[in-house]
Amino acid sequence: MTQNPTYLINGSFDQSISPFDRGFAYGDGVFRTLAVKAGQPIHWALHYQKLVEDCAAIGIVCPRAELLIDDIKLLFAPHAEEVMVAKIIITRGEGERGYAIPSISTPTRILIKSLLPSYADALYVEGVTLHLCETRLSVQPKLAGIKHLNRLENVIARSEWQDEMLFDGLLLDAQDHVIECTMSNIFTRFGDELLTPDLSQNGVAGITRQRILHLAKSLNLITKVQALPFTHLLKADEVLICNSLYGAFQVTRILDKIWTPQPLANQIRSLLVHD
Amino acid sequence: MTQNPTYLINGSFDQSISPFDRGFAYGDGVFRTLAVKAGQPIHWALHYQKLVEDCAAIGIVCPRAELLIDDIKLLFAPHAEEVMVAKIIITRGEGERGYAIPSISTPTRILIKSLLPSYADALYVEGVTLHLCETRLSVQPKLAGIKHLNRLENVIARSEWQDEMLFDGLLLDAQDHVIECTMSNIFTRFGDELLTPDLSQNGVAGITRQRILHLAKSLNLITKVQALPFTHLLKADEVLICNSLYGAFQVTRILDKIWTPQPLANQIRSLLVHD
Repeated sequence: MTQNPTYLINGSFDQSISPFDRGFAYGDGVFRTLAVKAGQPIHWALHYQKLVEDCAAIGIVCPRAELLIDDIKLLFAPHAEEVMVAKIIITRGEGERGYAIPSISTPTRILIKSLLPSYADALYVEGVTLHLCETRLSVQPKLAGIKHLNRLENVIARSEWQDEMLFDGLLLDAQDHVIECTMSNIFTRFGDELLTPDLSQNGVAGITRQRILHLAKSLNLITKVQALPFTHLLKADEVLICNSLYGAFQVTRILDKIWTPQPLANQIRSLLVHD
Repeated sequence: MTQNPTYLINGSFDQSISPFDRGFAYGDGVFRTLAVKAGQPIHWALHYQKLVEDCAAIGIVCPRAELLIDDIKLLFAPHAEEVMVAKIIITRGEGERGYAIPSISTPTRILIKSLLPSYADALYVEGVTLHLCETRLSVQPKLAGIKHLNRLENVIARSEWQDEMLFDGLLLDAQDHVIECTMSNIFTRFGDELLTPDLSQNGVAGITRQRILHLAKSLNLITKVQALPFTHLLKADEVLICNSLYGAFQVTRILDKIWTPQPLANQIRSLLVHD
């Protein structure tokens, strides 16, 4: 055990990743990123449910919640008062060379601790600017919605910009439909309708997106999940992005299109925190 | 150093993969699988060139050939007389959480040693049967042709069959074009034309495919690289698959379609060995 451990592998401070781990060989696994406060994972029930579903979608049996909770308590105990970030990775475990899934394999579980990114005050007041990614998301219904370890598209898309004023990158598919951002889901408001793209063909269906879809009713908004052409997004009254770490931000600029700051993102963020 | 080491990480028997390695976190890396005979990697120049190209395509500087050759000599020395399999993995190296490529990172290189699969004599005489995969390959021109570590599509496709009589699985795109197999490239012969699918939108462009395109002239065959509808493949005079380990096999069955054994696959395999 090192003095300031930042990760656990299968509950141990001393283990390492084998090069035979299929998470490493093929990206054969899934992950989640969540906030941990006072040693407690925030919105754990939803995160764990999504982790189980994503594992199941590629035929991995997710470790029991108790094991993961014990990991979190062990790794985050010294930071009981801070809000920190937990990344949980579950892989199919080790296997021989070849794509065939081993008849017997034990999933590998990794917990990584990191600092919460610091979000400038201006982001809450003035909103965020998005880069429009040239990289297009591919279509793969068998992996759509899953937060799996095959993330080269995100890496390539994220490499398109260095400007720190660009908070995230907007990802379209090859037909110019809006899908998501590299690390966020996206919502658009048209009047009293809150619309988020359908993620049945690609994208990652995050739990903050799911939570916003549920809490919209309390804001007298009607929710819609459907295809969203980029030209349609540009006509929205308001555009929001969300994830488990920052909650929600308003998008106030994409290319030359500018939206004036409005209160919805702050209202949603407040509901997300107190929900 | 263990008694019978099967891998080297950055040239060492004692290192392990960090959970912060981007190869593990995002599949942010590339790999090659090749035969090693008497401690010498077979067709090394082509494999190394492809490794360098694939690394460059995602912005990784490939380690020098001398380092990789030294690794191979070190790991394979005790098996000098046998033909073994080397898998070389190059990742972007370690990084903080987040998709942004670190401004400074040192690629991780892994060399794994394994046994050559045993191919039944019947495969050389009677050819092989392919499973037709229900999983379709997605379209991503930015990653097409590259043997990268995002291989969940192959894992899912390979999980479609257990029958050991099915040698590999044929992968189509969503438009019913033939692209490749899960671990092989594919060729079709129509008269004196040898056609292999265009891989500019997806698939892995293997070096055995590249070698067959070059040696076809010596067999008086005209080569074509173009889109190949599945219905067209079924009308081919002959279908072949190839990779760096088995060379080439004739495909003699896909679903109900049967082809009689012909000599081309054996001719090509012979040329591949002696080329």
